[in-house]
Amino acid sequence: MGEIAFYNDKFVGIDDKVVPIQERAHQFGDGIYEVVRVYGGKVFLLEEHLERFRKSADAIDLTFPFSLEKMKEIILEGLSRSEMEEAEIYFQLTRGISPRQHHYPGVPAVFSMTVRNARPLGDKNKGAAAIVLEDERWLNCYIKSLNLLPNIMAKQKAVSKNCGEAIFARDGIVTEGSSSNVFAVKDGVIYTHPATKRILHGITRAKVFELAAQEHIPMKEEEFDVAFLKNADEAFFTSTGVEVMPIHTIDDTKMPEEKPISNKLAEAYENLYKLKV
Amino acid sequence: MGEIAFYNDKFVGIDDKVVPIQERAHQFGDGIYEVVRVYGGKVFLLEEHLERFRKSADAIDLTFPFSLEKMKEIILEGLSRSEMEEAEIYFQLTRGISPRQHHYPGVPAVFSMTVRNARPLGDKNKGAAAIVLEDERWLNCYIKSLNLLPNIMAKQKAVSKNCGEAIFARDGIVTEGSSSNVFAVKDGVIYTHPATKRILHGITRAKVFELAAQEHIPMKEEEFDVAFLKNADEAFFTSTGVEVMPIHTIDDTKMPEEKPISNKLAEAYENLYKLKV
Repeated sequence: MGEIAFYNDKFVGIDDKVVPIQERAHQFGDGIYEVVRVYGGKVFLLEEHLERFRKSADAIDLTFPFSLEKMKEIILEGLSRSEMEEAEIYFQLTRGISPRQHHYPGVPAVFSMTVRNARPLGDKNKGAAAIVLEDERWLNCYIKSLNLLPNIMAKQKAVSKNCGEAIFARDGIVTEGSSSNVFAVKDGVIYTHPATKRILHGITRAKVFELAAQEHIPMKEEEFDVAFLKNADEAFFTSTGVEVMPIHTIDDTKMPEEKPISNKLAEAYENLYKLKV
Repeated sequence: MGEIAFYNDKFVGIDDKVVPIQERAHQFGDGIYEVVRVYGGKVFLLEEHLERFRKSADAIDLTFPFSLEKMKEIILEGLSRSEMEEAEIYFQLTRGISPRQHHYPGVPAVFSMTVRNARPLGDKNKGAAAIVLEDERWLNCYIKSLNLLPNIMAKQKAVSKNCGEAIFARDGIVTEGSSSNVFAVKDGVIYTHPATKRILHGITRAKVFELAAQEHIPMKEEEFDVAFLKNADEAFFTSTGVEVMPIHTIDDTKMPEEKPISNKLAEAYENLYKLKV
């Protein structure tokens, strides 16, 4: 069948025109989203993503139009209809359709979804380059909202410099990437920004904590600055899309070639879904 | 004819489903907008709004799909088709339709518009109540972008307390309202936040500068804190939708009953379009 989408109450073609202009995602970015990865026909870490989706909804006072269970059914039915083995499922919830006004309209939220071919994974052996940019985003980055303009502009700056990611620093402190969490390894210890309101609480980030514990690698949620990251023994970022990706260059700084901890975690993460498949 | 809309290349019904899910406004809030008011069948301050629209587009690297002149033609044709005398025209430009990825897709931007019945003006004699909230928005509020989640949440908080507006304060300094600029009057002088990147450079705000000069009322672009605002002789906010609106209460603070400067400016602003009509 191939790529497919869902809007409000039914399955539709992925390119169908289904959204009216006065939908609040379209005019305000008034909504939340998640992206899940499908490996070998199975959705990976769906429960974790649904739980975060619920938390994001709570944070912006968004009421679900139906149960999480029903949402899960739609997601799984979408995947089943697509007949895809390697896919990327994007789903979002918005505050509904109503003549434009700032305050909440009191209409049902609208759920939508796309099931797409998975984008190719990057080359983890090679790693990725990154640039550092000032974190000028709002102060509630823990909410996975549709207000992504600063993120896409940062990503574009990275891509225009042939880099895979932009790393945000707020007042000199490394927060996270434009679509990832960022980690530094120094003297055998993994460091990452604490899960405050300033960063997204990544699902892959949380998995790295579990994997590090299994591998007996100590891990600290501690703030660190840009200089610490550039002087680290290893650096990597994580996201649903890139999994665990080593960073080989940050701005003009080449990171060390050897990256045993990043490699170990990348492999351990792959095993999570390879063993399930 | 009544309310009407435009999407991409043609006029459509205002409730028509014309937007695909993978449009960048819908998934990223990746776009900019303007709202103009129509009084007596004429668009008020259209050139000023188009000029700001162009500036917002530049600020987010958005390339116009056609000239501003053509855009103006579409706006005026929309109004003409609607046959409305008192209307509110909303228009936006987004980075187009493309499978979701953060970086710019390199496809044509999409222009859309709605022509709606104007919402009733508030009662300027009575004025409006306001609450003060922490300004947690991003640092580029001068861009009139579709990333409005903090604004709508603030407005909702205000409305839930029977207030008309939420006033943002960043580190104690009053920046602006959730959909307006904010002014304080003290000892015959009007104060408002400087037009930095932290606030929207309101068209109505700029008009107030002109009107104050005409009325020989001194005006200062200077930062002031919440206590200064609450202790002011008068306070008011401005926007295309509310024009010049006196504030009668801020949190639990009742503002003075007499508001000669606010009243003078509100009247002078009305005269701008009443004389044109």
